Amino acid sequence: MTNEIGIGMLGYAFMGKAHSRAFRAISHLDTPLQPRLVAVAGRNEDAVAAVAAQFGYERWTADWRDIVADPTIGLFDNGGPNSLHAEPTIAAAEAGKHVLCEKPLGRDADESYEIWQRVAATGVKHLCGFNYRFVPAVRLARELIEAGELGEIRHFRGRYLQDWGDNPTLATWRFQAKEAGSGALGDLGTHVVDLARFLVGEISTVAGLVHTFVPDRQVDDALAAAVTFENGAIGTVEATRFALGRRNAFQWEINGSKGSLAFDMERLNELQVFKDDGHCARGFKTVLVSEAEHPFWEHWWPPGHIIGWGETFTHEALHFLRAIAEDTDVAPYAATFEDGYRAAEVCDAIVRSSETGSRVTVSYR
Amino acid sequence: MTNEIGIGMLGYAFMGKAHSRAFRAISHLDTPLQPRLVAVAGRNEDAVAAVAAQFGYERWTADWRDIVADPTIGLFDNGGPNSLHAEPTIAAAEAGKHVLCEKPLGRDADESYEIWQRVAATGVKHLCGFNYRFVPAVRLARELIEAGELGEIRHFRGRYLQDWGDNPTLATWRFQAKEAGSGALGDLGTHVVDLARFLVGEISTVAGLVHTFVPDRQVDDALAAAVTFENGAIGTVEATRFALGRRNAFQWEINGSKGSLAFDMERLNELQVFKDDGHCARGFKTVLVSEAEHPFWEHWWPPGHIIGWGETFTHEALHFLRAIAEDTDVAPYAATFEDGYRAAEVCDAIVRSSETGSRVTVSYR
Amino acid sequence: MTNEIGIGMLGYAFMGKAHSRAFRAISHLDTPLQPRLVAVAGRNEDAVAAVAAQFGYERWTADWRDIVADPTIGLFDNGGPNSLHAEPTIAAAEAGKHVLCEKPLGRDADESYEIWQRVAATGVKHLCGFNYRFVPAVRLARELIEAGELGEIRHFRGRYLQDWGDNPTLATWRFQAKEAGSGALGDLGTHVVDLARFLVGEISTVAGLVHTFVPDRQVDDALAAAVTFENGAIGTVEATRFALGRRNAFQWEINGSKGSLAFDMERLNELQVFKDDGHCARGFKTVLVSEAEHPFWEHWWPPGHIIGWGETFTHEALHFLRAIAEDTDVAPYAATFEDGYRAAEVCDAIVRSSETGSRVTVSYR
Amino acid sequence: MTNEIGIGMLGYAFMGKAHSRAFRAISHLDTPLQPRLVAVAGRNEDAVAAVAAQFGYERWTADWRDIVADPTIGLFDNGGPNSLHAEPTIAAAEAGKHVLCEKPLGRDADESYEIWQRVAATGVKHLCGFNYRFVPAVRLARELIEAGELGEIRHFRGRYLQDWGDNPTLATWRFQAKEAGSGALGDLGTHVVDLARFLVGEISTVAGLVHTFVPDRQVDDALAAAVTFENGAIGTVEATRFALGRRNAFQWEINGSKGSLAFDMERLNELQVFKDDGHCARGFKTVLVSEAEHPFWEHWWPPGHIIGWGETFTHEALHFLRAIAEDTDVAPYAATFEDGYRAAEVCDAIVRSSETGSRVTVSYR
Repeated sequence: MTNEIGIGMLGYAFMGKAHSRAFRAISHLDTPLQPRLVAVAGRNEDAVAAVAAQFGYERWTADWRDIVADPTIGLFDNGGPNSLHAEPTIAAAEAGKHVLCEKPLGRDADESYEIWQRVAATGVKHLCGFNYRFVPAVRLARELIEAGELGEIRHFRGRYLQDWGDNPTLATWRFQAKEAGSGALGDLGTHVVDLARFLVGEISTVAGLVHTFVPDRQVDDALAAAVTFENGAIGTVEATRFALGRRNAFQWEINGSKGSLAFDMERLNELQVFKDDGHCARGFKTVLVSEAEHPFWEHWWPPGHIIGWGETFTHEALHFLRAIAEDTDVAPYAATFEDGYRAAEVCDAIVRSSETGSRVTVSYR
Repeated sequence: MTNEIGIGMLGYAFMGKAHSRAFRAISHLDTPLQPRLVAVAGRNEDAVAAVAAQFGYERWTADWRDIVADPTIGLFDNGGPNSLHAEPTIAAAEAGKHVLCEKPLGRDADESYEIWQRVAATGVKHLCGFNYRFVPAVRLARELIEAGELGEIRHFRGRYLQDWGDNPTLATWRFQAKEAGSGALGDLGTHVVDLARFLVGEISTVAGLVHTFVPDRQVDDALAAAVTFENGAIGTVEATRFALGRRNAFQWEINGSKGSLAFDMERLNELQVFKDDGHCARGFKTVLVSEAEHPFWEHWWPPGHIIGWGETFTHEALHFLRAIAEDTDVAPYAATFEDGYRAAEVCDAIVRSSETGSRVTVSYR
Repeated sequence: MTNEIGIGMLGYAFMGKAHSRAFRAISHLDTPLQPRLVAVAGRNEDAVAAVAAQFGYERWTADWRDIVADPTIGLFDNGGPNSLHAEPTIAAAEAGKHVLCEKPLGRDADESYEIWQRVAATGVKHLCGFNYRFVPAVRLARELIEAGELGEIRHFRGRYLQDWGDNPTLATWRFQAKEAGSGALGDLGTHVVDLARFLVGEISTVAGLVHTFVPDRQVDDALAAAVTFENGAIGTVEATRFALGRRNAFQWEINGSKGSLAFDMERLNELQVFKDDGHCARGFKTVLVSEAEHPFWEHWWPPGHIIGWGETFTHEALHFLRAIAEDTDVAPYAATFEDGYRAAEVCDAIVRSSETGSRVTVSYR
Repeated sequence: MTNEIGIGMLGYAFMGKAHSRAFRAISHLDTPLQPRLVAVAGRNEDAVAAVAAQFGYERWTADWRDIVADPTIGLFDNGGPNSLHAEPTIAAAEAGKHVLCEKPLGRDADESYEIWQRVAATGVKHLCGFNYRFVPAVRLARELIEAGELGEIRHFRGRYLQDWGDNPTLATWRFQAKEAGSGALGDLGTHVVDLARFLVGEISTVAGLVHTFVPDRQVDDALAAAVTFENGAIGTVEATRFALGRRNAFQWEINGSKGSLAFDMERLNELQVFKDDGHCARGFKTVLVSEAEHPFWEHWWPPGHIIGWGETFTHEALHFLRAIAEDTDVAPYAATFEDGYRAAEVCDAIVRSSETGSRVTVSYR
C-alpha cells in the first residue's frame, strides 16, 4: 500500500504495549494511513524482543538511535520512562519524524519547555499522550461545554486515585527522582491538570501541597490543591497512589450555571449529565456514551456495547495519523507539546506552593 | 411523669422544625427523659404560632427571653439564625438550662469561643448541633476507624455540595453577613470540618480560598482548601452552594492503610467500605447501615428499611437527653461547644488563607 | 381540640409499631384530624404495655374486643397477624369505626372477599395497608404514567427480595400456615401485585410457581410468575425470602413506548427516569424525589434531605384521615379493601398455576 | 510462521466485524496459533470487500463455498444470519475445518440438533459463540460458584434488555422468520439461557410466554418465563427489544445459601459479590474484575483499566485456538454445539409453553 507510515516505538512496558496495540487495533477505523510496525526499542533485550513478537514489529533494537536513524520510520512514538522523553523525541523530530510522546512531556516545566521548543522548531507534528482526551465521554463533555450546555463554569473538582504506592519495596523507575521527575504529580496529577485545561480552561492560581508518605521515597505520593481558573471557576486538583480500593479512579465533576457533568474512569463509557430542564423529574442522567452520534462511535458497535481503556490510545493514534495525512492541526482535541509544557507549569506551581506555603500564580513563558 | 424535661425552642424555620419534630419522634426510642414541648420563640408571630400548633408546644412567644425566664424549661434549644446564637444561648445557660445550639456555634471563632467559655463556666450540658455525627453510617465509620479497621489514615476528602445559591434575588438571612457571619463556609463547610475532626482528627494547616460568585453578595458562595492533619493525613475540604444538581451532597472519602470508606448524604443509609481482605473478589461494599448491631438501629426497623435525614436530630436529641439524665459526657460522640469553637477556628483559618494567599496553621486558644 | 379522632390499634409488633409511630409523626403534616392514641391491643401483655408506653397510648388491653366496644375510638387500625384480620376488622366496621387493615387483607381471596364485602356494607371508610403507594417516588411514578409520559406500557418487572427466610428454626407466625395464610406470597408478593396494578393496570393471566426451600415449612419461601396485563403489557412478578444480601429490595421497572422507570425500595427516595428527549445525552436520570413540587414533599425538608421508610405509613395515615375528615374517596391513591381482595385473587391464581402447571386467567367476583 | 491457522469468515456485518477484529486483536495474547485472515465471504460484494480491506483479509468472495473449498483455511467462522448457520457450518466441518458458529446455533432445536450431530460426527472442534462466557466477570462468577462460595444455589434471575425493536419500518433479517427463526428469543433469550446453564445448571421446566408487540412482525419481541433448575433453584428468564433506555442490559443475579452475585453487561467489568462474612459491614461488593489474578487478565492492563465488549470475542477466539493447537476440550468454559443445541431446547420449550399455556419439562434427545 502506498498510504503506509512506518512506526518506531521506544518502550516495551505499559505504554509501549498500549501504544503498540493501538496501532494494530486501528485497522478498521478508517485510518488514512496504515501503520506499519517497523521497530521497537528498549533496554531489556528479552522484553523488547517479546513485545516485537507479540505485536508484529519487523525488528527490535536495544538502541533508540537505530529508530531515529531509520528512514522508513515516519512516526516516532515515545513510550519510555520520563527521563528518556527529551533526547530521543527531539532527535526524532530533528530527523524529520512526527513525534508522539507520552505524558508528562518532561520531568518538569523547564525540560518540557525545551522539548516543545526544539520540536516545534522542526515543523513536524507533535502530540503529547494525554490519552484521556480520547475517551468518548470526555470528548462528549468537551462538546457539551463548547456548545454552551453548561453555561458559565463555576467548579471543577478532579481527583485521580490509585492505590499501588503503599509498597516500600516496589522497584520501578516511577519512584526514582532522576528517571521520573516526580511521583503521583507527573503520573496522575498531570492528567487532572490536562483535563481541567481541556474542559474548563487555563488555571491561574494554585494553593496546595505535595506529600510523600513512604520514608526515603524520592518522589511524591500524593498532592492536593485549591485552584482558580482564568474564567472565574474555582476547584480542586488531587492525585494519589494511596487511595486503597481505588484502582484507576480518575474522577471529575464540573458544575456550570446551566448544568453539571461527572465522570469516573473506572466506568469510562458513562458520563453523568445534569441539566435543569424544568421537568419535575430532574437528576443526573447516566449517559452510556455509545450512540451512533457520539464521539468516535462511528468506529464501534451498536449502542450499549462498551469499549475499553485501551481504545483511548487507538483514538489518539487515529487522530494523529489523520493530522499527519491531512496536514491538519493536532490541537485542540489532542494535546500538543505546548499543552504538555503548560501542564508542567501548573504541576511545578503546585510544587512551589507546597514548598513556599504560598498561593502561586501560574505563568507561561 | 416525673422524668419529663421542659423544652424551650428558639426558631421556627428549618432547624426549629427539624428539632421540634425530633423531640416528638423520640417517644419510642427508650429516652430516659420525656421531652415536654413547653414553648417556642420567634420573631414572626404567625409563623411561630403555626409551628407551635403543628408540634404541640404549650405556648409560643415572640421574645426568647420569655423562654429563658421560664423555670419549667430545662433544655434550651437554639435553632435560630446565627446572629441569635450567642446571647440567648449564654443567657439560657446562665439561667441553669442545658443548651443545644445549632451550628455554626458563633459567626466566627471569636464569638464561638465566647459562647463556649461563658456556657462552660455555668456547668450546664452543651451540645453543638453537628447532627451528621448521628447518621448511623457516620457513627459506624467512626467505630470502624476507632477499631483500627482502616489502619493509618492517609486521606480525607470532603465536599458538601448544594445548588440553591445561584439566585441573586433570593432573600434569606443566610446571605446577610451580619446575621450569618459567613455563607457556604459556616453553613456547609463547617459540617465538613466537623466530620473531618470527628473521623480523622485535628486539622493542622489549611491552604485555600473562599469565593463569592454573585456580585454584591455579602457572604461566600463556595470554598476549597487543601489541608493537613496532625496525624499525617492530607486532604481537601470543599463546600459550595453552586453545584447544580447536587441537592444535599455531603460526600466524603477516607483512605487508610488497611481500608477506605466513602459516603454521600443523599444516600445516608449507605456506607461504602473497602477492606483488602485478600479474597480475589475485592471492592467497595455498599453497606446498608440498618442491621440490628448497627449504631442507633436498636430503635428502628428490620434491616433494609431505611430512615430519613430528620432522624439525625432524633438521635442527637436522644444523646443529649441521656447525657442530661445520666450526667454523662456529651463528647466525644456529640459535638460540644468546644467542638463548635474548634470548627470555627479552622473555618477562620481558611478565610485567612484566602485573604493572605498563605497556608495557615490552625491554632486554638 | 374538637377535630380529634380516637385511634384503636390491634398489634404491637412490626406493623403495630410502624403505624403507631406514624400517628405520632403526623402532627406537623397539616392533618385535618389529630389522632388521639386511645388504646392498643395485643396478646402479649408485657409487649403491648411497652408499646403503649412508648407511643403514649392512653391504655392497653389484651382483648381487641375492648377496642371495638370503645365509643371514643373512631379509627380501628389492624396491624395484627393475618389470621386476626377478618374478625376484628369486620367487627370494628360493624361498630361504625373506619378501618385500616394491613396487607394481605385476608389469608386468601375467599377471606379477603368476605372482609371487603362485610366492611363495604357498613359504609365506613376502609384502607388496605399497601403502604408503598405512599413512597413519594412511587406516587410520582403513578403521576408520570397517568400524564402519559411513558406512552403505552410494554413491560413491568417487579421483584421483592429479602433474605431472612433461610433459618429453619426461626419462630414466627409468618411461617405458620394457619396464621399467615401464605409465606413470601402474602408478605412480599402481594406488594408486587399491588404496585403492578397501581402503576400498570389489571393483571389478566399468570403462569408461575411458588416454592418452599425449607423442608416441612408450612408456607412458601418464594414465587415467580410470567404475567400479562389487560392493557397488553407483559411482565414478571417475583418475591423471595432467600435472596442473600437483599434486605428489603423491592425493585421494579416499567418500560413504555416513550419512557421507562426503575425503582429500588432500599433507595426509596430515588426514581430512575428515562425519557427519549432527543438530546445527544440520553440516559436514566437518578431523580431524588424531594423537590417542593414532588408528592408529599410540602410536608418535609429542603430538596435532597431524604425521608425514611417509616414515613410511608405517615403519608398513608394522613391520606386516610383526610378521607375521613373530608368524606373523600380512599381510592385510587390508597388501596381500598377491594384492592386488597383483587391482589389476593392474583396471588391465588399464582398458587393455582403452580399447582396445575397451567397459565391461569385471573377473574374477579 | 509454522504455527499459523488460516481463518475463513462468513459474514461481514455485526458479528463478522466483531470476530474479525478479535482475530487481529489476539496477537499479544500468547496465542499458540497466529490467525491468518485468508478470506471473508458475504452476499453484498461492496460490504464484504470493505470488511476485507478494514481487517486485512487476503481475499473476499460472495460465495461461502469458496471458503469451504480453500485448503489453506483451518478454521471456519460463521458470523452470518441464522439461516446460514446450518449448511455452511456442516460443509466446513465435513471439509475438515474446525468450526466456530454464532449463536443461536440453529433456528430451532431441530436444526440445532442436526448441526451438532453432523459436525460432531466429523471430529473437528466446534464452538458455539456464546461470547458472554468470556467476560472476565462471568468467568469469575463461574469460578466462585464452582469453588462453593455461593453454597447451594436458590435463585437465578436473568433478563436481557434492549430497546431497538420498537420501529415497525426497520429492515433487518432479524425480523424475518425464515432467516432468524425467532426474534428476541434466539437473539437475546438464548444468551440468558446459556449463562443460566453455565452458572447454575440445567433448566428442568419453563412456564412462560413469548410476545410480539408490533403488528404483523414475524418474530417475537419479548419473552418471560418462570423456570426451575435440576438442582432445585428457581428463577426467571426474560428478554426484550422493548425496554426503552436499556441498550445492552444483560442483567443477572444469582442467590445462594452463602452468597450472591449480580451483573450488568453495560458495566461488564464489574461483578457485584455478596458474602455473609460475619463482619458488621456487610454488603454487595462492586468488584472491578481487572486484577492480575482474575480470568483473562494476564493479557491486559494494570488493575482498574477496563476492557471492552469486543474483547469477549478475543478471549473466545484465544480459547478456541488453544483447543485446536493443544487438542484440548472446548467445554466446559466455552459452549460447544451441544450447548448450542441444549439452549435451543429450552427456547423451544418456552415457545411451547406460550402456545399451550402449560408448564413444559425440558427434555433432550
